[in-house]
Amino acid sequence: MSALGVAVIGYSFMGKAHSNAWRNVRAFYPQVSEVRQQVLVGRDAAAVAEAGAHYGWAETATDWAAVIERSDIDIVDICTPGHLHAEIALAALAAGKHVIVEKPLANSVADAERLVAAAAEAAERGVRSMVGFNYRCVPALALARRIIAEGRIGRVRQVRAAYLQDWLADAEAPMTWRLRREAAGSGVLGDLGSHVVDQLRHLLGEPVVAASGQLRTFVPERLGPEGPEPVTVDDACWATLETASGVVASVEVSRMATGRKNGLTLEVYGEHGALAFDLERLNELQVLEGAGSPDAGMRRVVVTEPTHPWLEAWWPPGHVLGWDHTFTTQAADFLTAVEHATSPRPSFADGLAVQRVLEAIETSAADGGRQVQVVQGPATEQATEPATEQAQED
Amino acid sequence: MSALGVAVIGYSFMGKAHSNAWRNVRAFYPQVSEVRQQVLVGRDAAAVAEAGAHYGWAETATDWAAVIERSDIDIVDICTPGHLHAEIALAALAAGKHVIVEKPLANSVADAERLVAAAAEAAERGVRSMVGFNYRCVPALALARRIIAEGRIGRVRQVRAAYLQDWLADAEAPMTWRLRREAAGSGVLGDLGSHVVDQLRHLLGEPVVAASGQLRTFVPERLGPEGPEPVTVDDACWATLETASGVVASVEVSRMATGRKNGLTLEVYGEHGALAFDLERLNELQVLEGAGSPDAGMRRVVVTEPTHPWLEAWWPPGHVLGWDHTFTTQAADFLTAVEHATSPRPSFADGLAVQRVLEAIETSAADGGRQVQVVQGPATEQATEPATEQAQED
Amino acid sequence: MSALGVAVIGYSFMGKAHSNAWRNVRAFYPQVSEVRQQVLVGRDAAAVAEAGAHYGWAETATDWAAVIERSDIDIVDICTPGHLHAEIALAALAAGKHVIVEKPLANSVADAERLVAAAAEAAERGVRSMVGFNYRCVPALALARRIIAEGRIGRVRQVRAAYLQDWLADAEAPMTWRLRREAAGSGVLGDLGSHVVDQLRHLLGEPVVAASGQLRTFVPERLGPEGPEPVTVDDACWATLETASGVVASVEVSRMATGRKNGLTLEVYGEHGALAFDLERLNELQVLEGAGSPDAGMRRVVVTEPTHPWLEAWWPPGHVLGWDHTFTTQAADFLTAVEHATSPRPSFADGLAVQRVLEAIETSAADGGRQVQVVQGPATEQATEPATEQAQED
Amino acid sequence: MSALGVAVIGYSFMGKAHSNAWRNVRAFYPQVSEVRQQVLVGRDAAAVAEAGAHYGWAETATDWAAVIERSDIDIVDICTPGHLHAEIALAALAAGKHVIVEKPLANSVADAERLVAAAAEAAERGVRSMVGFNYRCVPALALARRIIAEGRIGRVRQVRAAYLQDWLADAEAPMTWRLRREAAGSGVLGDLGSHVVDQLRHLLGEPVVAASGQLRTFVPERLGPEGPEPVTVDDACWATLETASGVVASVEVSRMATGRKNGLTLEVYGEHGALAFDLERLNELQVLEGAGSPDAGMRRVVVTEPTHPWLEAWWPPGHVLGWDHTFTTQAADFLTAVEHATSPRPSFADGLAVQRVLEAIETSAADGGRQVQVVQGPATEQATEPATEQAQED
Repeated sequence: MSALGVAVIGYSFMGKAHSNAWRNVRAFYPQVSEVRQQVLVGRDAAAVAEAGAHYGWAETATDWAAVIERSDIDIVDICTPGHLHAEIALAALAAGKHVIVEKPLANSVADAERLVAAAAEAAERGVRSMVGFNYRCVPALALARRIIAEGRIGRVRQVRAAYLQDWLADAEAPMTWRLRREAAGSGVLGDLGSHVVDQLRHLLGEPVVAASGQLRTFVPERLGPEGPEPVTVDDACWATLETASGVVASVEVSRMATGRKNGLTLEVYGEHGALAFDLERLNELQVLEGAGSPDAGMRRVVVTEPTHPWLEAWWPPGHVLGWDHTFTTQAADFLTAVEHATSPRPSFADGLAVQRVLEAIETSAADGGRQVQVVQGPATEQATEPATEQAQED
Repeated sequence: MSALGVAVIGYSFMGKAHSNAWRNVRAFYPQVSEVRQQVLVGRDAAAVAEAGAHYGWAETATDWAAVIERSDIDIVDICTPGHLHAEIALAALAAGKHVIVEKPLANSVADAERLVAAAAEAAERGVRSMVGFNYRCVPALALARRIIAEGRIGRVRQVRAAYLQDWLADAEAPMTWRLRREAAGSGVLGDLGSHVVDQLRHLLGEPVVAASGQLRTFVPERLGPEGPEPVTVDDACWATLETASGVVASVEVSRMATGRKNGLTLEVYGEHGALAFDLERLNELQVLEGAGSPDAGMRRVVVTEPTHPWLEAWWPPGHVLGWDHTFTTQAADFLTAVEHATSPRPSFADGLAVQRVLEAIETSAADGGRQVQVVQGPATEQATEPATEQAQED
Repeated sequence: MSALGVAVIGYSFMGKAHSNAWRNVRAFYPQVSEVRQQVLVGRDAAAVAEAGAHYGWAETATDWAAVIERSDIDIVDICTPGHLHAEIALAALAAGKHVIVEKPLANSVADAERLVAAAAEAAERGVRSMVGFNYRCVPALALARRIIAEGRIGRVRQVRAAYLQDWLADAEAPMTWRLRREAAGSGVLGDLGSHVVDQLRHLLGEPVVAASGQLRTFVPERLGPEGPEPVTVDDACWATLETASGVVASVEVSRMATGRKNGLTLEVYGEHGALAFDLERLNELQVLEGAGSPDAGMRRVVVTEPTHPWLEAWWPPGHVLGWDHTFTTQAADFLTAVEHATSPRPSFADGLAVQRVLEAIETSAADGGRQVQVVQGPATEQATEPATEQAQED
Repeated sequence: MSALGVAVIGYSFMGKAHSNAWRNVRAFYPQVSEVRQQVLVGRDAAAVAEAGAHYGWAETATDWAAVIERSDIDIVDICTPGHLHAEIALAALAAGKHVIVEKPLANSVADAERLVAAAAEAAERGVRSMVGFNYRCVPALALARRIIAEGRIGRVRQVRAAYLQDWLADAEAPMTWRLRREAAGSGVLGDLGSHVVDQLRHLLGEPVVAASGQLRTFVPERLGPEGPEPVTVDDACWATLETASGVVASVEVSRMATGRKNGLTLEVYGEHGALAFDLERLNELQVLEGAGSPDAGMRRVVVTEPTHPWLEAWWPPGHVLGWDHTFTTQAADFLTAVEHATSPRPSFADGLAVQRVLEAIETSAADGGRQVQVVQGPATEQATEPATEQAQED
């Protein structure tokens, strides 16, 4: 049985999205290894059984530890809440399984550091690991990265980034575990801020070295199952980041930005051009090149041409992709790395680097916003092309 | 073996899109019958075998006639070029198989009429049929239809519709079978015009009764495999249509509209409001209600809320869908109709009605653009809600 | 007294806009001749006196015929309703005054022909005349014309044009003289259609040679001062026009397009690029050049750079202009032509050419939409650059 | 001679804009006092004479001190560079003239305080003063303020503000006095940041109480008349501000944001709705009301209806205004206050309050971005409606 056996741990929102990726990956990326959707794992046996049947899994199970040990499982894909990431991932790496961990890598820098160490050790045994910052697989953002790397907008000076949602704008919205520090680690900072920080690092191809920030909880108390309960995480966060080469990036993330549903927006200003992106218009990139020339302007590129990242795998020009397709591409990237025995990106080290920036923002916020230096990791910062893209380019 | 066995005939662009739908339909619409991706059919044995392996099919075959007769096949889904639709569909209906035919239903009114008759006869035997105007399954367009039906923009007066692409804008682009009348039937009129006409009928819930039109071939000759060859179909078409209640709709379709990749745009003007849509921004609908009130304006609705058509089946707010998801929903609609023994829409009669409007446009164009009455079909014009939506609303 | 004396006939909407132009023309175009705002003319002595005081006029009067004869009046600017244009303009030309007539030139082709003849005769005496299609002075549209003329989007094939307003969308809106054929000549066709036709001719630099069209009155009766009264003009019009070189232009104009306030929109599709414009965003032009190259797309040009038409006269980049500034530029164009003894454009012949296209549309509409040839005028069709622009370029 | 005599000091960019306002104010606001454009003042006699002739001034002069003393001058309008504001304004107030000072009020808090004291003393003598934050007179922003004040978006929580230009994006752009601290006081912070801070205070109707900030000079040296010269002011600035009620506003201002010409953008997020504005689309406001209701979304309000602020004075719906019209409205506001003996807004106290926020941002930036409390002024913070708007509403 040559197909790679996959187990996904978790079957709710992220489990559904990752299942979708494994079910479809070879229809669009036929060059990758064959995979078997072997086991979907969850705590509620009946619920996971139902989900498994619909999502195309051969089996379901409730005991992740047992599944990890199975010889017919080659890949463990962890879609649980963040506080379980470390334990499961460490066990899976120890068992010699390739591992994908949904973002954020962990709830703390300490956990992330342990994971990086374990991943490095496992890599020596040929075991691969990846953290699931799926927005690296948005074609428009990959195109943005390519345009920056090719110097087409010149040296970047400023980035203006935000990730705005509004599901907490209603002050009467009830308490959830996501608003409790002990369970969630942080609020919007870890949830959406981690995506923004990863994109900054990825787009610019360099580390964030300093951060100042502010946090705010606009609704300090919400109704829980047993009455009013304090909200112990941030509803919104503002940060000013600086990269190694001196780019300044402003970051604003919020769950209270009324009317914004999934508004990851990025504006990149370079010496000779600029880029702009909005996740709610996932298939578009605004591009300005040749600033200063007559009739310059931001042009709306519909990122669906065969020359655009990954698009040859999908549909003809103008036939737009959706949010979930990013996970399919991410799975293809991972499988390509596994097959070619290369290190998939974003790596656990990338996940740790993000975590350290988030920690610096929190430290700064606790000190009135004064700028803080960000601890730098080992020399793995240099971002590389996604594996599938490299293959395409060969 | 209780799962419904499916055969798809054709494995290129549309075959890939329909395969995707069958592979994913139960992951998002778990309430529908279980399906088996049994056979993918194509003329080139090696190529179809490769496609079948990637797209999740149990088998592949080259002889559609034999496949249609198999007892383990319940559904025949026809994705071939248009001139083969009639023969295959008639055979499949005769064999008692439920049938989906990609749009347009046929290349001629005569063929479409034969198909409607056969479908009506088959329906009495409990056999279902559907034509694949997948844009009925775009959530934003289904929302548009709902808003109109609820009277929220008042009686509609004008519609401004276009479907603009640019893949023939380059005069050096080579000859293809799509530009030969004998193979393609017509040019952009049948290809993109059919989508526009179906949407008009569907959005407004009433038939088109009169049409005037003009056709144009901008590049009359292109380079074929054996030298320059005349282009015998239209590159662009303009029409003014009138519906039963007196709505006037302007229609413009083109394959020469430089810069437009998949630009199906619709503007609907009613007594009290208006709607606007652009397929390149598939997840958005512009809505104006309460015209005349202070501070009225077109608002951008991101059509990803659980209350929006089909969205509960997919992802949380702001997590946008892509073009291919419409086929998944279409498959769910069809399966729901099969299971509940109802008549799926769009029906073959819908396909015929569209064909008659296209024919009227061609007749008018041949007479200098003078308005022509459109032949009306049997009393099946009254559009109904998609099956999955009805189920949701119950 | 060397300054040119100006009389404006009419003091309501257009009289206010033209007064504004004369008051400001030398502040922005100091190179033009000095002008005196001498007389504002209207029928209601008290009302015109009040308007004249506010709008900067030295005097007001009620008898236009007497004003025209005054030796201190050099320029007569006619802002009355259309049915008075011919009589006043003919008298003014006979009196040797330079004449500007607000668009449309006249309510009938016959009147327009008489005006063209008189203007030609007057031109031999050094008397200048112009028709006020002010949108030729929108910088973004002048830039569009320049881009087309320079071949930057290649040979034009299709134009998609509309002028949509909604002030009649409310079926309860009362009767006005604009809805009576005897007073207004036509409905939206003459009012807004004339602007669209003039722009087509101007942008493309060639005549319209054939037209087919349809007219519609959606609300056939409205409440007048003495009870319900029939509406005897068109509420909306659709036309397909063809130019000398074979460009096909679709045109849609309406006063019932709910939500559109002043929606003159133009899309121009050429072999290698495209343009798009919306009057509600008067300072922007969408431009696509280099179609087919990687990452092509429509770019949003903010038309406020000093290199853009007329902008050097106004404000720094990004400081946007308004609708009324077009009249100021138009006045400067006219004064420049007067001073340099050149023929200002748009000429009365331009006005006549527009009128003939409108007439062809009406003729076609009366014949079920069949295409009609447009009568061509004398060889004055070749459009030229605006006078101020020529001066700038020298 | 009853008309109010006006002197404008300065005849370049701002002098041209203010001249335009005085020339046109009564054409659109006929209810205000009659004004005489008496003297335009500048240092270069020939240049100011030429400008004065074009801009409609009766006389020109070079000695502002003498002009201020003239008995036929009632209003002194100061359009000089910032470092001259205080001296001229103090003299004019002492001479009993009503005074308008272009923004920013002064280059230092100390100067601004002296001006506030002088204005308060002058007010007791019936002498009026105003600072020219003309964007308060943008109709869309005035509508935004009205919507917030009426509670239509609920309590505001977050504001995301930016003012982005790109005229320094080119690193080869030469040195100017604006980049020397001794002349300009600060860089983009004072120039564009002052507009943003004034708008925040005005929109929200409450003071800014705390600020943290960062400054950056991206191009530290530029070519001056005598060789390379250090740039001693900021090219870009980032700040996080907090208002009295707890609103958090992020602010980003830059002269290096490639592609942004005059990009003052504001997003306001409230409990029940949101607003968005872009100065490059001056006539539009994006409005979300009723968040949480089905099909909610940001709607594009074209702010040209007669019910919108000041629009009744201008043109019919959809006939858009330009940047310069804001100065005309500002002049009308000032004249209305003078006539009605009320205190015009924005007052010198408003100008001082802005200056204190800018100072706090600089202080914070010098301390690594740590949050700083903003000194509060006397109890004049409560913003009022513009005078012309009050008049309209009566």
